[in-house]
Amino acid sequence: MLGKEAFNILESLSTFSESGEGITRLFLTKEHKASNDFIEELMKDAGLQTRRDNIGNVIGEYFSKNKNAKTLVIGSHQDTVIHGGKYDGALGVITPIVCFKHFLKENKELNFNLKIISFGDEEGVRFATTYLGSKVVAGIFDKKLLDRKDENGITLKEALINFGLDPSKIDNEKINNIDSYLEIHIEQGPVLEEKKLGVGIVTAIQGSHRYNFTLEGMAGHAGTIPMNMRRDAGIGAAEIICKINSLIKNKKNIVATIGRINFFPGAINVIPGKAVFDLDIRSIDNDLIFSSVEEIKNITKEICDKNNLTFSIKQTNEVEPNICNEEIINLLKDSFKNAGEEIFLLPSGAGHDAQSFDKICKMGMIFVRCKDGISHNPLESVTVEDLDKVCKILNEFFKLY
Amino acid sequence: MLGKEAFNILESLSTFSESGEGITRLFLTKEHKASNDFIEELMKDAGLQTRRDNIGNVIGEYFSKNKNAKTLVIGSHQDTVIHGGKYDGALGVITPIVCFKHFLKENKELNFNLKIISFGDEEGVRFATTYLGSKVVAGIFDKKLLDRKDENGITLKEALINFGLDPSKIDNEKINNIDSYLEIHIEQGPVLEEKKLGVGIVTAIQGSHRYNFTLEGMAGHAGTIPMNMRRDAGIGAAEIICKINSLIKNKKNIVATIGRINFFPGAINVIPGKAVFDLDIRSIDNDLIFSSVEEIKNITKEICDKNNLTFSIKQTNEVEPNICNEEIINLLKDSFKNAGEEIFLLPSGAGHDAQSFDKICKMGMIFVRCKDGISHNPLESVTVEDLDKVCKILNEFFKLY
Repeated sequence: MLGKEAFNILESLSTFSESGEGITRLFLTKEHKASNDFIEELMKDAGLQTRRDNIGNVIGEYFSKNKNAKTLVIGSHQDTVIHGGKYDGALGVITPIVCFKHFLKENKELNFNLKIISFGDEEGVRFATTYLGSKVVAGIFDKKLLDRKDENGITLKEALINFGLDPSKIDNEKINNIDSYLEIHIEQGPVLEEKKLGVGIVTAIQGSHRYNFTLEGMAGHAGTIPMNMRRDAGIGAAEIICKINSLIKNKKNIVATIGRINFFPGAINVIPGKAVFDLDIRSIDNDLIFSSVEEIKNITKEICDKNNLTFSIKQTNEVEPNICNEEIINLLKDSFKNAGEEIFLLPSGAGHDAQSFDKICKMGMIFVRCKDGISHNPLESVTVEDLDKVCKILNEFFKLY
Repeated sequence: MLGKEAFNILESLSTFSESGEGITRLFLTKEHKASNDFIEELMKDAGLQTRRDNIGNVIGEYFSKNKNAKTLVIGSHQDTVIHGGKYDGALGVITPIVCFKHFLKENKELNFNLKIISFGDEEGVRFATTYLGSKVVAGIFDKKLLDRKDENGITLKEALINFGLDPSKIDNEKINNIDSYLEIHIEQGPVLEEKKLGVGIVTAIQGSHRYNFTLEGMAGHAGTIPMNMRRDAGIGAAEIICKINSLIKNKKNIVATIGRINFFPGAINVIPGKAVFDLDIRSIDNDLIFSSVEEIKNITKEICDKNNLTFSIKQTNEVEPNICNEEIINLLKDSFKNAGEEIFLLPSGAGHDAQSFDKICKMGMIFVRCKDGISHNPLESVTVEDLDKVCKILNEFFKLY
């Protein structure tokens, strides 16, 4: 069972971690170096030619004899969040290596060029900017980021040099003429588990917009101001949050989250004169996000008028959805069918390296069930059986691609 | 106009303050010493015998020739919050001194014993425990408080000694045989202003109960968990807050405030797994508080069940309402009438020294309009005209008592 082989390798890889709970393997650290060494050995053992680029990625390459062969990149990231799990990222690096090794043994050759890449940074923990590895490969890296500092004041440029890399060569690391990019990743959500399915095909990576809401009324004494004379910003915020929730619950293919709220001055015996909260709203349909935000703005105005409050809404982030390529989805559907797996399509709520490739080639993703939908947590868990399903599907994909 | 005289004295008193915005005159500080000296001089000038007790109060006494005369105490506090105003407390010390002075001049004598007291501490800023001055006079001071420390680690006992007082004599400072206690205070709310009235008669000091609510669901990724699979503690909290607000708004003589809320983990892109908020609920009717809290508990259970959340509600504070004495209210009504003022009754939403006397004598209060209902703020403001009204009413009260 290839699943068991991949599972065991992921266990070994998980030992490259800072001490403490779960896995902590950050970009351009000694743990990263150890994981790069480990992964490069695996790649070589699988029959791939290996090289390292100047952003800390490890690349395993297979060149088809066919000079006109198209190039498939399969990748994911080696890094984790702080106190993360064993599978977010790593699963998508290890399983294709294992699959390739066995495919090559059985079939002697592939009729396409394959590059399996372990991206150094996706989570963005160290430099507070994500997808550094895949951005360089896709040629969308912004060189200004080289001056960005980690929390110890070390710039990305310095960290790369300390890691033995040459930041001046980053521009040359773009891989040209990629036909398709495929990524395998844990779902990081509960949908596959709920559907009792081990694997699914990703339709799109949701876009995410973020807004900061500030409501202002009048702070006042919790005892002396009758209910009907209050301008309670906290009540306004609570009403808006309830309305956002019921609005979005009644729509499909969109989620909205209020993860952070504060009342000011924030004393138990003072009517809140100000309330601040953040909205994160995501969908694979950008128009649906925009129209929903318009509705939310109207709701906010109505509720603030009713409660005699003023308000401001500031957009703090906007990432467009990335729709997976239809050809790749169809290839994956056939691969699922040939591997005996039920075809199930679902969006990705989280961001992935795949997004870096959206504009430059065909892009697709496979999701793997993770226990209780938990990720970014030491409790991240997948089964050998599900890894086996991934390997079977990938094997079929290699045949069809 | 006595109002002008009182107003000017309050201006002078306001100069005894730490530097910085507004008035900061804390318990057992050099500002307190200065205000005690100033107030004692005023009392002497008004024809009162003065003494200081061992909790830092200044007491001005008039003894009636009539050996069977009853004793009226009129008091309020000299201390302020940090960056407070000129009138909260001070107004209730200065206006009776001014009134007494002129009443005595005109009428030569009073047919009751009068004690005007400037309490050293009501706000409780320094030792985080309120009403120290009035508790000692009322004989309800808990000696354990002597070990309580201020933020510099100085105990109340040490602070009293440093102020030149003898804490061992505090037990003897209880004043016996008080017939009535009267307090004049700014409203600290907007009701009198709304009614276009300068003064009002207090019916009762609201009781206040406080509860801490903790809701628990399941934290999760803001992108990957569909709306219908969430256990969002933040949404539960928002729904409960809205329901509490509409419930209490539809009742009379009760207010409820949620002044503080937190979602956990509190990240913009994480569904809140936990929400914590505080409820402050006040009424002059303790039964109404209890029955409302029961309704709120039922609402909480219903909303948490619906949202698949667990919850706990912990009571963190309970102060019973203090109902003003009917005889005093009737005397005040007659005094208002005789002074040409409209009789208007209102509850006190804030706490006052008067509460210390509730169990030991007849207790009543007069409220004075303050601009925009603002208190505990440098912007605290009253008018000369309203102070004049107070003086006229007090003059009538002296005649009737």
